[in-house]
Amino acid sequence: MRRSGEDFRTIWQKPDDPTVVQIIDQRRLPHEYVVADLMSWRDGVHAISEMLVRGAPLIGATAAWSLYLAALESRGQPDRNKFIRHAAKALAATRPTAVNLRWAIDRVLGVLGRTEHIDEIEDTLEQEARKICDEDIEICRAIGEQGLKLIEEISARKSGDTVNILTHCNAGSLATINWGTATAPVYFARDKGIDVHVWVDETRPRNQGSQLTTWELAENKVPHTLIVDNAGGHLMQHGLVDICITGTDRTTRSGDVANKIGTYLKALAANDNNIPFYVALPSTTIDWTIRDGLTEIPIEERNPDEVAKIYGKAGDKFCTVQTVGSNTAISNYAFDVTPARLVTGLITERGICAASEDGLTTLFPEQSGLAS
Amino acid sequence: MRRSGEDFRTIWQKPDDPTVVQIIDQRRLPHEYVVADLMSWRDGVHAISEMLVRGAPLIGATAAWSLYLAALESRGQPDRNKFIRHAAKALAATRPTAVNLRWAIDRVLGVLGRTEHIDEIEDTLEQEARKICDEDIEICRAIGEQGLKLIEEISARKSGDTVNILTHCNAGSLATINWGTATAPVYFARDKGIDVHVWVDETRPRNQGSQLTTWELAENKVPHTLIVDNAGGHLMQHGLVDICITGTDRTTRSGDVANKIGTYLKALAANDNNIPFYVALPSTTIDWTIRDGLTEIPIEERNPDEVAKIYGKAGDKFCTVQTVGSNTAISNYAFDVTPARLVTGLITERGICAASEDGLTTLFPEQSGLAS
Repeated sequence: MRRSGEDFRTIWQKPDDPTVVQIIDQRRLPHEYVVADLMSWRDGVHAISEMLVRGAPLIGATAAWSLYLAALESRGQPDRNKFIRHAAKALAATRPTAVNLRWAIDRVLGVLGRTEHIDEIEDTLEQEARKICDEDIEICRAIGEQGLKLIEEISARKSGDTVNILTHCNAGSLATINWGTATAPVYFARDKGIDVHVWVDETRPRNQGSQLTTWELAENKVPHTLIVDNAGGHLMQHGLVDICITGTDRTTRSGDVANKIGTYLKALAANDNNIPFYVALPSTTIDWTIRDGLTEIPIEERNPDEVAKIYGKAGDKFCTVQTVGSNTAISNYAFDVTPARLVTGLITERGICAASEDGLTTLFPEQSGLAS
Repeated sequence: MRRSGEDFRTIWQKPDDPTVVQIIDQRRLPHEYVVADLMSWRDGVHAISEMLVRGAPLIGATAAWSLYLAALESRGQPDRNKFIRHAAKALAATRPTAVNLRWAIDRVLGVLGRTEHIDEIEDTLEQEARKICDEDIEICRAIGEQGLKLIEEISARKSGDTVNILTHCNAGSLATINWGTATAPVYFARDKGIDVHVWVDETRPRNQGSQLTTWELAENKVPHTLIVDNAGGHLMQHGLVDICITGTDRTTRSGDVANKIGTYLKALAANDNNIPFYVALPSTTIDWTIRDGLTEIPIEERNPDEVAKIYGKAGDKFCTVQTVGSNTAISNYAFDVTPARLVTGLITERGICAASEDGLTTLFPEQSGLAS
């Protein structure tokens, strides 16, 4: 995608100072486009846990770049390796559900372990972080090409009428380095001149749909309409949705999908109305070690203030309002698990497959013998 | 229910001036308890359309009281009857989905038609509005007694452990005159010493759950936890919900249920997890003239600002914040229809029945031959 017509990445090295990593403070969108500097690996921990960045692939990339920052900071430390591994541990603890976070950290630590000369680690980790980002873009591009076929088929079946796509949360460019996972097929379809329209779930409590997905679709001139999370079922009952595409934070080898809380409800509604429900994912979000999403994926519980307080624009100012009585008990689960039986297919960088162990290991045969 | 330990009604005549009708401005809860005066039938139109009052039974009662105000205002009019019927037409047009609104208006107009002496209409309409309110309280009490049995059974099965009830929107005292529909069984269970806990759906976009249901449950010391609308499926998957009880704005004679947008998604999740899903309703919300909720119930679309803007407390002040980009297209359907097949049973003032024409006409045999 592009922003204001310019090529776009969600994380990059500062042009005039490559020892600083820059990100968009996504908490301020859509009202303000604010770039935040990461000067230390601790800034990376803060950016992930406070959700300046979010989205499984971008979290992984931010952790990788944070380890590069740790390598820079380790200069003069008695044990540079130990210093970096300490940072890795703290980064891994920021968020429990997304599996890419640990994948990216393990990958960087693997490279670190293979580095023979300690004075090479800065360059090595910089290259690895950059590679993770470049690869993510290629993966998202491949997902876009694969998912495009689904949208093309629907468009053909509808004789070119608008294809209505429902998505939940933001599995967009802002959740990755560029293109997104669930949004990549949409951007590819739009670029091919297919008439697409996206129903954007608000995605309470953090409103990633209303604040991030709407923003990036608008920047890319993709027609879209915001709805509350409650509305998707009604739209599907009335033939107003042709396909659902969401992202995922972790997928089991049997095809269960952990994604933003509420995804399961949309999958149920799609199933009840015979609407295809697809999940777009880089294979880095597959946890090959587990099969049962409901019992084996830890579901993060976050601060109740995310539900009780809302940040927004009041005239020219910004403020946070409390919408709930001050003594109200609140529970705030961040993800839910959609069982594979409700998922029509998985859109990966290698192709589209059934949400099943057979489907996944056909595309990823190197994983077929590795289950625990 | 009670408020601050006092007996409670949601609509009443001003104690020192019975020509004024008073309501709670529910838009200000839970932050402030503000009483609004209805001095004219036009205030009633405003109160219903701007949602100072909401909830099918309370809307009906407010319309009835507004017609009493119209009767007072018709003094000196050349045709008092015509004046009141004009007000009735405007009141009926305020909200399209709830059937009680038209039921209450038709009932009052019927009484008006049977009034022999025009100078009796003020007293007659006052009495009728009062009767509608008194009857609604008795109906809700009966619903509470019927629904109590379901909660007692679950409590017994769980050997007295907490019964977890999930509800959507506010089908509480604040939606009726007192007791509520979905909440009445909960209040009765609590009064019997049964250990109950309520999961309260936030209910976007107007937050009736987080702002009204939490408020009235807190006033009545019923343990409860607020969740976002996205969370109910996850809770049900993990055994944290024993029963769902919601209200309804219109029920077809075949048991389809129009209720606050998002109800359908919770019914799907309950069905997927073998959790009983009950709908509590006064028979005044049954539309005996229709069978197919999906095609025959008009679904109100409301102002997009309900989604884009949120009112709340910022420190000691109140303000409204815009959470969405200013050019974002928004669609705002207020209700959805839950097909009868997903409803375990209907809790009415005459008993609990299957969500079907057979079930309903067994309880209401006087309606058995009246379908269109």
